[in-house]
Amino acid sequence: MRIALDIMGGDLAPKEIIAGGKAIAAKEPSWEILMVGLPAAKPLLGELPANISFVPCGSVMGMDEPVEALLHKKDSSIWLATKLVKDGEAQAVVSAGSTGAQMSAAILLLGRVKGIARPAITVVLPTLQGGKVMLDMGANPDVKPEMLLQFAQMGVIYANIVRGVESPRVVLLSNGAEECKGNEVTVAAHKLLAASELNFAGNIEGRGIPKGDYDVLVCDGFAGNIVLKTMEGLNSALFSLLKEEFSRNLLRKTGAALVWRGLKNIKLRLDYAEHGGAPLLGVNGVSIICHGSSPARAIENAVKVAASCVKGDFVGKTARFFNKT
Amino acid sequence: MRIALDIMGGDLAPKEIIAGGKAIAAKEPSWEILMVGLPAAKPLLGELPANISFVPCGSVMGMDEPVEALLHKKDSSIWLATKLVKDGEAQAVVSAGSTGAQMSAAILLLGRVKGIARPAITVVLPTLQGGKVMLDMGANPDVKPEMLLQFAQMGVIYANIVRGVESPRVVLLSNGAEECKGNEVTVAAHKLLAASELNFAGNIEGRGIPKGDYDVLVCDGFAGNIVLKTMEGLNSALFSLLKEEFSRNLLRKTGAALVWRGLKNIKLRLDYAEHGGAPLLGVNGVSIICHGSSPARAIENAVKVAASCVKGDFVGKTARFFNKT
Repeated sequence: MRIALDIMGGDLAPKEIIAGGKAIAAKEPSWEILMVGLPAAKPLLGELPANISFVPCGSVMGMDEPVEALLHKKDSSIWLATKLVKDGEAQAVVSAGSTGAQMSAAILLLGRVKGIARPAITVVLPTLQGGKVMLDMGANPDVKPEMLLQFAQMGVIYANIVRGVESPRVVLLSNGAEECKGNEVTVAAHKLLAASELNFAGNIEGRGIPKGDYDVLVCDGFAGNIVLKTMEGLNSALFSLLKEEFSRNLLRKTGAALVWRGLKNIKLRLDYAEHGGAPLLGVNGVSIICHGSSPARAIENAVKVAASCVKGDFVGKTARFFNKT
Repeated sequence: MRIALDIMGGDLAPKEIIAGGKAIAAKEPSWEILMVGLPAAKPLLGELPANISFVPCGSVMGMDEPVEALLHKKDSSIWLATKLVKDGEAQAVVSAGSTGAQMSAAILLLGRVKGIARPAITVVLPTLQGGKVMLDMGANPDVKPEMLLQFAQMGVIYANIVRGVESPRVVLLSNGAEECKGNEVTVAAHKLLAASELNFAGNIEGRGIPKGDYDVLVCDGFAGNIVLKTMEGLNSALFSLLKEEFSRNLLRKTGAALVWRGLKNIKLRLDYAEHGGAPLLGVNGVSIICHGSSPARAIENAVKVAASCVKGDFVGKTARFFNKT
């Protein structure tokens, strides 16, 4: 297992990315981590174990840089890391850099799996019933009904591989439970899903997302991105309210100290980092997108997700599914 | 001030609706509440003060009943309550019944304000910086860019009236902060908003919603409905996690007792019921939509919202704005 890690991408790069890569390399001695970075970052790597090597790049795609710039930055860390996968030097690429640049590099270098209209960003969402697969998280702000069906099909293969679910229960995000509810695309997608081979359980409303009574949640990239970030924002708002209320007087401060472990557990149970990075499903290779503010632990988990996709042969299974007679 | 209250609509109807209506009638002796309900519900009203009267209806629109049924139920509570507004017998209608039926009754009986393409459901969302105006919450799953501009314009008039904000800061919900981010409709709407007379502050991501760094948040009814319900679901999931973690052992139970008031405050600060019902803005009259599970307190607040809309002359101001030369 060889995994290319873009150590230049992300708000906490390169320090936290390197730390995450080293942590996983120490735990999994049979995996090789190829750290792609600017020569200036090399000294930060420190002493490297045998299963980590450094691959120099010439530039970095900025977080807010237009994706088009990628075509003039074929020496950038994300381009080179993805090219390692294309050339068979690595089996997966992991990055916390610009999502747009990473998607473009994956689509341009690895290409789409034959038969798939659009790749989709896929997360494992923390819910009251554990991690659940949700896609698309932002690759496709505008979709067609057929694309939502394909997202569901890819999500099912993914849930099968990474969550070990036999016949994943698929739901479609909408503004009402009834099949007639939704925007035009969603109503049409409902019909396609209901007529498909999938274990389709109908529409789900926003209220049902955190409950997690499903295995695969399908939506367009606009709604998916907004929902994910809303949950992130609300979690953080809630914890700042807890902090404020619990430090208001000595009694509450004492109480807060006693429930402290419980609060920490909740934070952990809701933490996206625990569930690692988000693969771009539908491209001919494994490309794992990490949150821009990923700390070492999130990177470590993302590398594990990459390894699961490789071991589970996600790409091969997808290609076979979408190209069956 | 005369307000028609549909006492038959909602999961907790008629008991909680009646209780809410009686509570507000007691606090505001100069307001008159017209309680519209089935004769069978009349005994539940008990002793009525002088400012409450009972208006009998012949049927009730079911929560899941197709909206089309309304045309054959012109004796239903929501139809009659809305007709009281049309006939000038009341100045506003409040209901926690079927949203679809209430919208249809409002559009058919009151009609749209001239110049407005589509009415929008508008909530006051609890955020870290107090209640903020958000629309559309579900009336329009599919929108055109021009409609989002009109939602913003109506939202600004509403924020001015109910929140007292002089020059409301408008933001557009999208999957990225940059103006190029969004689905096709959102990108086009961004251009319209930027070129408008509004105090437009650009796109906002889901993460920014609970922070509340805006006065009016505009989105299509599909995304808006999903976001609102996701927040509702996550709040409730978080409180069930808190309950679980805080009751795990005696130490934590003790701590929980000490922070109890703080938790209650947070619940209150996040409670939609505190902010009352959601007006359907853009119709020729005041129609306030309440959450299906509204308890008495939510109804009480919704009647207050109705009164603010009437006192602030929302309909008149909107008509003048959209019909200025």
